[in-house]
Amino acid sequence: MIGRLNHVAIVVPDLAAASRLYAETLGGKVSAPVAQPAHGVTVVFVELPNTKIELLEPLGEGSPVKSFLDRNPSGGMHHVCYEVDDILAARDHLKAEGARVLGDGEPKIGAHDKPVLFLHPKDFCGTLVELEQA
Amino acid sequence: MIGRLNHVAIVVPDLAAASRLYAETLGGKVSAPVAQPAHGVTVVFVELPNTKIELLEPLGEGSPVKSFLDRNPSGGMHHVCYEVDDILAARDHLKAEGARVLGDGEPKIGAHDKPVLFLHPKDFCGTLVELEQA
Repeated sequence: MIGRLNHVAIVVPDLAAASRLYAETLGGKVSAPVAQPAHGVTVVFVELPNTKIELLEPLGEGSPVKSFLDRNPSGGMHHVCYEVDDILAARDHLKAEGARVLGDGEPKIGAHDKPVLFLHPKDFCGTLVELEQA
Repeated sequence: MIGRLNHVAIVVPDLAAASRLYAETLGGKVSAPVAQPAHGVTVVFVELPNTKIELLEPLGEGSPVKSFLDRNPSGGMHHVCYEVDDILAARDHLKAEGARVLGDGEPKIGAHDKPVLFLHPKDFCGTLVELEQA
């Protein structure tokens, strides 16, 4: 079912500093910041040859990554995103296996304009898992 | 400098359960467990089309992931590993940039029989970073 690792998301307290770190210290290929108000984050993409890292900074008061940053002031790894060919079939399979899908269980349009779902970290070894329609 | 994402490592409290979860619930391609006593872990590889996930369970009393599991009893994302072409040049660049290399700064032979270094998470947005010679 799971296909490519689409990205690893890292929440950071200072996106400009994190961009410099990934560009200059780690020598990565780093995008300009992209504000995504609908998702409550500003994102910088680090393009690696085989996948990408997404650096996320909270945007706005209701940001879904704000509480994570409160608990982890230096930042930290927030989630992994796996691609799936059929997100509704994946969801139904996961629910049949007893895994909890966050929210109302309906895919939302994610940061890449594709349907996504998030799975409960307690059901996945303490790891927040995003599934994205490939 | 940084190249491919070699792997994402997830520490888990029960490797057999995590293997079933990744194989049956997530439908991934999961290896048999491999004990690596020199690294204090037992590893299961989840082979994705573009990279891999490493599920790590502590092995032995001095396991380097034991304290992480004590702090995160459900498990969690432990580190990311980026490939570099020249690990000594990478280390010297990182040190010149002020980043802290863990241990004595000399590459060790890692779980894939290649030289590796770990970088201080406080210098990398709360994320433990492994560099592996490509």
